[in-house]
Amino acid sequence: MTSISPDVTPGKHMAAEIAEQPAVLSGLYANRAEIAQLAEAIRRHRPRFALLAARGSSDHAALYAKYLVEVLLGLPAGLVSPSTITLYEAEPDLRDVLLIAVSQSGGSPDLLAVTETARARGALTVAVSNTADSPLANAAQYAVPIGAGTETAVAATKTYSATLLALYLLIDAVREGTGEHAAALGELAEQALTECTGPVEEAVQRYRFADRMVACARGYSYASACESALKLAETSYLHARAYSGADLLHGPVAAVDPETAVLAITSAGRGGAAMHEVLDTVRQRGADVLAVGSAATHAPAAQRIPLPECAEEVAPVLEVLPAQRLALGLALARGFDPDQPRGLNKVTRTR
Amino acid sequence: MTSISPDVTPGKHMAAEIAEQPAVLSGLYANRAEIAQLAEAIRRHRPRFALLAARGSSDHAALYAKYLVEVLLGLPAGLVSPSTITLYEAEPDLRDVLLIAVSQSGGSPDLLAVTETARARGALTVAVSNTADSPLANAAQYAVPIGAGTETAVAATKTYSATLLALYLLIDAVREGTGEHAAALGELAEQALTECTGPVEEAVQRYRFADRMVACARGYSYASACESALKLAETSYLHARAYSGADLLHGPVAAVDPETAVLAITSAGRGGAAMHEVLDTVRQRGADVLAVGSAATHAPAAQRIPLPECAEEVAPVLEVLPAQRLALGLALARGFDPDQPRGLNKVTRTR
Repeated sequence: MTSISPDVTPGKHMAAEIAEQPAVLSGLYANRAEIAQLAEAIRRHRPRFALLAARGSSDHAALYAKYLVEVLLGLPAGLVSPSTITLYEAEPDLRDVLLIAVSQSGGSPDLLAVTETARARGALTVAVSNTADSPLANAAQYAVPIGAGTETAVAATKTYSATLLALYLLIDAVREGTGEHAAALGELAEQALTECTGPVEEAVQRYRFADRMVACARGYSYASACESALKLAETSYLHARAYSGADLLHGPVAAVDPETAVLAITSAGRGGAAMHEVLDTVRQRGADVLAVGSAATHAPAAQRIPLPECAEEVAPVLEVLPAQRLALGLALARGFDPDQPRGLNKVTRTR
Repeated sequence: MTSISPDVTPGKHMAAEIAEQPAVLSGLYANRAEIAQLAEAIRRHRPRFALLAARGSSDHAALYAKYLVEVLLGLPAGLVSPSTITLYEAEPDLRDVLLIAVSQSGGSPDLLAVTETARARGALTVAVSNTADSPLANAAQYAVPIGAGTETAVAATKTYSATLLALYLLIDAVREGTGEHAAALGELAEQALTECTGPVEEAVQRYRFADRMVACARGYSYASACESALKLAETSYLHARAYSGADLLHGPVAAVDPETAVLAITSAGRGGAAMHEVLDTVRQRGADVLAVGSAATHAPAAQRIPLPECAEEVAPVLEVLPAQRLALGLALARGFDPDQPRGLNKVTRTR
């Protein structure tokens, strides 16, 4: 267990960085012209396939981007397994491939290796990072700075939501969109953080002694389930894991029982609608359901954290906010300092 | 809890199907000329990208195939998110794309929709299935039958290992390989099943009361960690989840403590070597490590299940065997019938 030194307010940095998100999102949206310019360069290359490379929280942002690429751009896409390059020295033919490397620090050696190899093998490489002059940004042909400011807490919060928005603005601009669905996200994030305070506090009380949690969602929101589970695991040490709602029904649902808390992302739109069958099944198995999202109000659940409604493809930017607050609250209630999770560093140097 | 009717021997089908694997693998290898013929047709199409589509256990076989495609064929690859097509009606440009749909039953509506759409959008489509005349096999241009015979247990065992081998033989043949690394797998599987009996029984005793398990691996063996976790979750209801060793160190390791059992796949080769850092870290955190693989003998672990050595790229075919036996043994020790997991059907009809 991490001991908390008496001169430190536990979770101070994480709480402050969660609260900064409305301003960070508004600022990034205001700078969208810069991202649109870069999108124009990508469009000129006419990529036919997209690869996303990331680790940790950024991997969930990459998952979100994979859905955007497939649905909005109509391009096949894949998440890179860095070990094929770092361990097995694969030399793929990457002509006509767009590689987007996502890393808040821009300092992961494995992502750097993937980006350098991809560029050498013919890919158009783009780095999405919070550090303008990072090794990753320098290795890629193009860099998208997310401009979230210094992140001090080990658990990524504002860099995650800002990365989602940056990826949305980039991919939407590649198809010559105007980014209009993202225009109100700053204000909506402010509203979401204000309105979720009470419901999150109730959820903290409810799950104070929970042993394990399953997070699930479908479609764009699957990334939100993954990130919620990771945030809970790395700060409050809850044994949380995520499934796509469809995969959950393919086997792991057998392990869901009345001792299982289920965090279900249910926002307005097709992904949320496809969760009805999942919710019915886990409820029949006696699970305790916490519904989070703009359609949470009407979900069959024990607890609900409603969110403001927005276009489905940008809903993940809002969905992660109450999960961050829940992770923070549960960590504090359990006596941990989420700013200093045991066993973690800000930059993980795997290869 | 599933009640067990008195006239049924719990786990009878699963035990029998696990034991059939050496013969199934030998039979499939003997028929490799048929697969090589199909590989020739794929080579003629000169695909530039590969997509893999699957659900459940087959999704882990697809993950294995993704590594094979990237390393052995040097092609970028991705796992399909079926919802982009079934929920969001994406219309991707799939010319020059090889789509491999993997399904033991060949009956999943979402995989069928993905395959039909992919074919209509220009992809070369291949179905890998245990049912020769399945809707999926009929929807694809080419079908690879895995020939594992009827699988009665709900938990996939022989169809999983046979699918791995079929995918290896197919992808190796696309690069004009001879499949030589797979020649001895039938015999090695027999040896593995014989030799693991004692160590698996010890592991069943050790984890009889375990609450949760983390399975991890790197490289090709990551698929083995995923499948091991799923098998344990769906039959013995252990709360098991898998991480790539690299991702584990990026955050979730914070939740690993002396109450956590860690199943670590450690085979000879680069993936196994890259696990040293992971094993050191989880051991420092007090986790109880069960090492499984051809390099398990020398791993720093509380329990070990050694396996015969083989080429690293086919090791996953053997690595899953003791995990299946462990899932069966733990289910029986906990009073469940793994042939009839609560809440599961053989074919899951998600869209």
